[in-house]
Amino acid sequence: MSGIDALKFAELDTERKKRTGFPEVVFCQGKKDDFLKDIFAKLYAANGEVLGTRATAEQFEIVKSVIANAEYDEVSRIITARENEKKLVGNIAVCTAGTADIPVAEEAARTAEFFGSFVSRIYDVGVSGIHRLLSKTEILNKANCIIAIAGMEGALASVIGGLVSVPVIAVPTSVGYGASFEGLSALLTMINSCANGISVVNIDNGFGAGYVATQINFLAERGKTK
Amino acid sequence: MSGIDALKFAELDTERKKRTGFPEVVFCQGKKDDFLKDIFAKLYAANGEVLGTRATAEQFEIVKSVIANAEYDEVSRIITARENEKKLVGNIAVCTAGTADIPVAEEAARTAEFFGSFVSRIYDVGVSGIHRLLSKTEILNKANCIIAIAGMEGALASVIGGLVSVPVIAVPTSVGYGASFEGLSALLTMINSCANGISVVNIDNGFGAGYVATQINFLAERGKTK
Amino acid sequence: MSGIDALKFAELDTERKKRTGFPEVVFCQGKKDDFLKDIFAKLYAANGEVLGTRATAEQFEIVKSVIANAEYDEVSRIITARENEKKLVGNIAVCTAGTADIPVAEEAARTAEFFGSFVSRIYDVGVSGIHRLLSKTEILNKANCIIAIAGMEGALASVIGGLVSVPVIAVPTSVGYGASFEGLSALLTMINSCANGISVVNIDNGFGAGYVATQINFLAERGKTK
Amino acid sequence: MSGIDALKFAELDTERKKRTGFPEVVFCQGKKDDFLKDIFAKLYAANGEVLGTRATAEQFEIVKSVIANAEYDEVSRIITARENEKKLVGNIAVCTAGTADIPVAEEAARTAEFFGSFVSRIYDVGVSGIHRLLSKTEILNKANCIIAIAGMEGALASVIGGLVSVPVIAVPTSVGYGASFEGLSALLTMINSCANGISVVNIDNGFGAGYVATQINFLAERGKTK
Amino acid sequence: MSGIDALKFAELDTERKKRTGFPEVVFCQGKKDDFLKDIFAKLYAANGEVLGTRATAEQFEIVKSVIANAEYDEVSRIITARENEKKLVGNIAVCTAGTADIPVAEEAARTAEFFGSFVSRIYDVGVSGIHRLLSKTEILNKANCIIAIAGMEGALASVIGGLVSVPVIAVPTSVGYGASFEGLSALLTMINSCANGISVVNIDNGFGAGYVATQINFLAERGKTK
Amino acid sequence: MSGIDALKFAELDTERKKRTGFPEVVFCQGKKDDFLKDIFAKLYAANGEVLGTRATAEQFEIVKSVIANAEYDEVSRIITARENEKKLVGNIAVCTAGTADIPVAEEAARTAEFFGSFVSRIYDVGVSGIHRLLSKTEILNKANCIIAIAGMEGALASVIGGLVSVPVIAVPTSVGYGASFEGLSALLTMINSCANGISVVNIDNGFGAGYVATQINFLAERGKTK
Amino acid sequence: MSGIDALKFAELDTERKKRTGFPEVVFCQGKKDDFLKDIFAKLYAANGEVLGTRATAEQFEIVKSVIANAEYDEVSRIITARENEKKLVGNIAVCTAGTADIPVAEEAARTAEFFGSFVSRIYDVGVSGIHRLLSKTEILNKANCIIAIAGMEGALASVIGGLVSVPVIAVPTSVGYGASFEGLSALLTMINSCANGISVVNIDNGFGAGYVATQINFLAERGKTK
Amino acid sequence: MSGIDALKFAELDTERKKRTGFPEVVFCQGKKDDFLKDIFAKLYAANGEVLGTRATAEQFEIVKSVIANAEYDEVSRIITARENEKKLVGNIAVCTAGTADIPVAEEAARTAEFFGSFVSRIYDVGVSGIHRLLSKTEILNKANCIIAIAGMEGALASVIGGLVSVPVIAVPTSVGYGASFEGLSALLTMINSCANGISVVNIDNGFGAGYVATQINFLAERGKTK
Repeated sequence: MSGIDALKFAELDTERKKRTGFPEVVFCQGKKDDFLKDIFAKLYAANGEVLGTRATAEQFEIVKSVIANAEYDEVSRIITARENEKKLVGNIAVCTAGTADIPVAEEAARTAEFFGSFVSRIYDVGVSGIHRLLSKTEILNKANCIIAIAGMEGALASVIGGLVSVPVIAVPTSVGYGASFEGLSALLTMINSCANGISVVNIDNGFGAGYVATQINFLAERGKTK
Repeated sequence: MSGIDALKFAELDTERKKRTGFPEVVFCQGKKDDFLKDIFAKLYAANGEVLGTRATAEQFEIVKSVIANAEYDEVSRIITARENEKKLVGNIAVCTAGTADIPVAEEAARTAEFFGSFVSRIYDVGVSGIHRLLSKTEILNKANCIIAIAGMEGALASVIGGLVSVPVIAVPTSVGYGASFEGLSALLTMINSCANGISVVNIDNGFGAGYVATQINFLAERGKTK
Repeated sequence: MSGIDALKFAELDTERKKRTGFPEVVFCQGKKDDFLKDIFAKLYAANGEVLGTRATAEQFEIVKSVIANAEYDEVSRIITARENEKKLVGNIAVCTAGTADIPVAEEAARTAEFFGSFVSRIYDVGVSGIHRLLSKTEILNKANCIIAIAGMEGALASVIGGLVSVPVIAVPTSVGYGASFEGLSALLTMINSCANGISVVNIDNGFGAGYVATQINFLAERGKTK
Repeated sequence: MSGIDALKFAELDTERKKRTGFPEVVFCQGKKDDFLKDIFAKLYAANGEVLGTRATAEQFEIVKSVIANAEYDEVSRIITARENEKKLVGNIAVCTAGTADIPVAEEAARTAEFFGSFVSRIYDVGVSGIHRLLSKTEILNKANCIIAIAGMEGALASVIGGLVSVPVIAVPTSVGYGASFEGLSALLTMINSCANGISVVNIDNGFGAGYVATQINFLAERGKTK
Repeated sequence: MSGIDALKFAELDTERKKRTGFPEVVFCQGKKDDFLKDIFAKLYAANGEVLGTRATAEQFEIVKSVIANAEYDEVSRIITARENEKKLVGNIAVCTAGTADIPVAEEAARTAEFFGSFVSRIYDVGVSGIHRLLSKTEILNKANCIIAIAGMEGALASVIGGLVSVPVIAVPTSVGYGASFEGLSALLTMINSCANGISVVNIDNGFGAGYVATQINFLAERGKTK
Repeated sequence: MSGIDALKFAELDTERKKRTGFPEVVFCQGKKDDFLKDIFAKLYAANGEVLGTRATAEQFEIVKSVIANAEYDEVSRIITARENEKKLVGNIAVCTAGTADIPVAEEAARTAEFFGSFVSRIYDVGVSGIHRLLSKTEILNKANCIIAIAGMEGALASVIGGLVSVPVIAVPTSVGYGASFEGLSALLTMINSCANGISVVNIDNGFGAGYVATQINFLAERGKTK
Repeated sequence: MSGIDALKFAELDTERKKRTGFPEVVFCQGKKDDFLKDIFAKLYAANGEVLGTRATAEQFEIVKSVIANAEYDEVSRIITARENEKKLVGNIAVCTAGTADIPVAEEAARTAEFFGSFVSRIYDVGVSGIHRLLSKTEILNKANCIIAIAGMEGALASVIGGLVSVPVIAVPTSVGYGASFEGLSALLTMINSCANGISVVNIDNGFGAGYVATQINFLAERGKTK
Repeated sequence: MSGIDALKFAELDTERKKRTGFPEVVFCQGKKDDFLKDIFAKLYAANGEVLGTRATAEQFEIVKSVIANAEYDEVSRIITARENEKKLVGNIAVCTAGTADIPVAEEAARTAEFFGSFVSRIYDVGVSGIHRLLSKTEILNKANCIIAIAGMEGALASVIGGLVSVPVIAVPTSVGYGASFEGLSALLTMINSCANGISVVNIDNGFGAGYVATQINFLAERGKTK
């Protein structure tokens, strides 16, 4: 980025952790290299941990040059770095309809784990083979919150919603073709769910689902502590 | 209708039964009274039976004035008249997600019955209480063809598609509110179904589903005979 | 409803309370009178309490004829009946952008109260006069969950999301005109929120928000108990 | 795919053939190489035959390395492998409006042939030169089911629907430009068809059409046997 | 209309006939009574003839009070008044897919006749019974211009476009339901027509089609004379 | 409004005039009678003047019962009340494409006049008779700001934008039918204008345009004074 | 294209010239090389002239290898070949709003010239500088038909429609960005034009406009001769 | 550009500066090299200054070859050249929600500066951390006009609108993913803003905002001078 120093305009929200209980997270997509290096360094220094989403392998190399113990997961495209281990508490179930939804699921799961939630993965249990999902009912019922991830017709959330007593965070994905319109079909399905207890985040927004699910998981484990 | 005689422009398709195996059907909605009276009389005279869809109670009274044994069903808004009883053959299962979808289901069921198909009704088995549907698996598996009718998120067709070996005709309904956009959400869900064996007709088009299902039911019972 | 007995097709989900922790609720809109009478009577007999949403004053009279102590709220269009008082626990903050959003807010608030949640109402605090919302920060921070309700541009959820540490359930409303497209604009705004911790329910779906918020409120107060 | 083993999450639906009469099929698009190799090998071992759709030439090379007798068709982008020859029964007519629709048509035709249906190809008979289609009426009338494939304005299905007595499966294609909106125009045309006997699958979903048509073709040839 | 005199703001385009060859026409829908009375009177005085479209029977009574020889057609909702007979020249064929499209067709036909074109009406020749249209080929081929009017899937224009050598003006209608989206489906079909020689006017715009067709008809009969 | 006192939730923004230079305005549409009475009374008491938009004649009677000198304009549906006369300064030109756009134009004009701007009305100068607009060029060039109001294809703003040196506020209206989609077409036209100096407000938002235009008019007359 | 011989399925419409007065034209986009070579050769042999649209420079080289005197225009992406010179008759005015619309305009102009029409080019006369268009009024008034080409807000057609007495064929282009939605904005503008005499073809469909304009131009020059 | 000389069709609007007070600006995107060179040279010669938007670095090299003192800014992609320094007057505040919106903001800011406005940059003050924006209230209140730039949910404009007394020009950006639909979500948010004083330009149209803001800024500083 030449001609203007974008960094000087970035208003780092250092009060965020105090206000919301969560540190600021870096959405890496489209960020310039210099900016990325700086912001990761600053956040890591401030919080002793940092999370970046939608990162390319190239961006990870840049981050690694300033944070030696940074790690990268290719599937979820998440960068994490942490000074000290964190104990995982509670239980969030992350479910997908198909294997193509796994990248979004891993973004959700690893986000939740980064923030300190324990995660159960239940993948490839779409409604066209309903027995696969039903065989997991017991595992589902152990969770404090469930993330239901599906593209195409996005029916997974409704079926899960009818099986459990806890909130279901639905994530439409852009998996599909033709009239899936890049996830719009799944988004509409989920927003119109006839099941109760379902709320929806943006298309492919695994991070957002992991964040909300962790808020709920922490409330269930610790109650409202702030 | 004054100033122009619409009836003289109606091109009655008297060859249709020979060409397609099915007599012409009257879509009553918006039809003028005189036109309705005439067209019902002509089709009944030609075929000894007649089917009208989307009819109001007022329109039924008009039809009854020319065809004494005409019958009307308030739920499906269907008018039928028939000289001789017809034996019902085969088996079509008509399923709905909720009770609000029943008018569309009855349009489908009664259309299929009018043409000579036996119909099994399986209503209010939406996916948010999946056990209700699963308890009907045996009945579903006796059908030659299944009609799956649902509004809101429209996920019923996908779940049924995964349970059976016969074609599923999916009918989105305009049941719902907000982002259901008058049935668009259910239509997209069904068109994007991850299950195989599903094809879709227009929103609220119970008649169309009953027609296709009968074509399939007859093929299964009689083979291709034409 | 003549010609077919819709009631015999209604598959009452008597196991729902056991499975999900919540009794079945009646969506009154478009329901026939006889059906309404029966289903309210059956659910009240089974659970000792019953909730109906989107009811007209006429429908309330019908329900009252079978459940003498039923009550109706004109703003939220909610019917409730209950044998014994219920203690309200926890804290859910229900916020609206304008006064026109209050009917949806009351549907959310009264749903949450019916299920047993304590509710704080914070109305008419839209973002175009941001000081109104900021003056309520302390109250907001006492809640286990926040419901943010807004039509038109729907920006309320994002601002609240940045102020608190608990989940925000966003409800777009159909309040507005022109390019609000019956709530689509607010829905898109909320789904695209740049703030974390926000998930979204259908347009005008106050009931859905009250349900999810209660699930979260109970988890925060009681932990996962099932 | 690093960091997570997607394969271990794939829930192979080994009961599918028993439940639906058809083996599981591989949608190759976007599948990782290792996963592709494994899933093809497993399905071929289990069923003695395997079908893959939306495959690239590169993916075929990978499949060939584990299944020596696998074959690839560039037009339809279909991979097939089979231990024993299969006798083709019945008759499905696959029709296209233009030559640009042929890839989708071949996906439909080869899917139907893989499952055991005999296929008649009738290509480039779009409605702007209606005599081309009319000259094929005799061939159309020999089929148990017809697949009508068209992009742009998608009118082919309606015209065919008026000529025959068997079900027409309509496939909108993304062929076109401008206001065809990647197939949306053809999809809407087909869903709104004024002809009877038409049901619709997703844009470019040749596989889905071939699957449904085979279900119907088998019912016509064998009746309901399950 | 109180508080402001709308009439004083209406900029009557008295030069229009000189500039475009056609007098100004009154779109009656939503016009206030006083304004209607005035504008009809002024235009009739100026041109010795006047045409009003989208008029109600009530509006006609108002016009009749100032122009005694005004006539009204209920089907097309057109008001006309004329001092002297006009000889009709050339030939425009106005075709509809169904009988429900006739009101739009009559708006087109009577507009063309008002301006001086001879019109051939060919109604109810939709593509689902293609023989009906084909039997009119000879009549179609006598026209200087063809107007093709259809709702639902709107395929009529494409088939006609392939049969004739003259321009086809396509008019989508709002006839249909569900995914016809008030004529959007037919509009997209017609804009994407694979046939040549087709151009499209607004949904239900019979007047617009009659106007363009007359321009073409006059060019064919008289050549460019201005 | 029973069951809840909406008034107690209305957060009157008494600081607004100090903050923004303009008093709070009442959007009357859908407001309950009691609420209307109270809010008009309070705002009139506080500011010595009050403006209400989108009011019915019935609502005006209610307002009049508490503010004796309130006035109502049927065309714009605006209620105004004022203790002392206000001198009108500067010059805003309000232009419409057709006479059907006048109600929106009057909402804009009367809003601007209420706040203290002088307004020039230039109505029915749509682009299909371009000479009408060109003949007003001199008047246009005297304005500090221009409001361009049009439905249907909404081209007026672009043409005006090319003729003047001052900002043009474009207001799409819902005037039109068919593919005008309730003003969406005009909105898109104006947002995509190839002319410079154009910015757009919501469909039919005459009030919004009058407000912005007044802000600009005051800046031009008084400079930035706050 | 391997595995299937697409060519054998192409149904060359050799009767088209007799039926419609125009020879078949090749839409080159996406056509395979072998197919292109064959179809150009066959059509040239049959008609002594051939027109190809949407061709790449590479495709031209292929065509040139079989038709030595083929010519290519880079701007319009049109290939033409012709045995004998053709006299150009009549007059079609092709107008564009901006210079970016010229490729579509040249497709229209060269199509019209290929078929035998004389063309006047009037480019870069968009409505934001209305004097540019007005200065061409005399040239416009010499044409038998006008093609108005514009992207972005597409207002050009309406202004021209108000200036002339002959039909205006409007072509929306995909020129623009943001809310132009690839030409949808211009399409809606043109379909909703308040001017009379305007009909619309698909986005970027210069060929279609050139074809219709030629039909009209020939009618004006020769009358209806078939 | 071969075959046709686009340059000869470009109608340079040499009167524009006189008519609108601003010289013609070059939208570089998609312009051919030769055309670019010529048009920059001509405009620079005529006006002694020239502004180009949406330019690539390659295009800048071409411009530099004819205007030696041309300058390029990579962030805004703006080319400027000027013979004499210009004094910047007044005050426009350019605000962004995030750092990803800065390229659009710089296009707006540099456009305003080129025309002679003084600009205050206030970046990364999105509503999810509302204190960041509130801390700038004093700076905001010094401006004659504010440009509010945001993608995703686009709520920034509404909050600013409630804080200030001057016009806010809102610019939606295509920043976001999923249901942001390339900026449509932010556009709808801004058009539906509940705050007063907001008008909207096209998605990513920084130039347009800078232009309007300068018109307003000059009116505030100089009054209406023309």
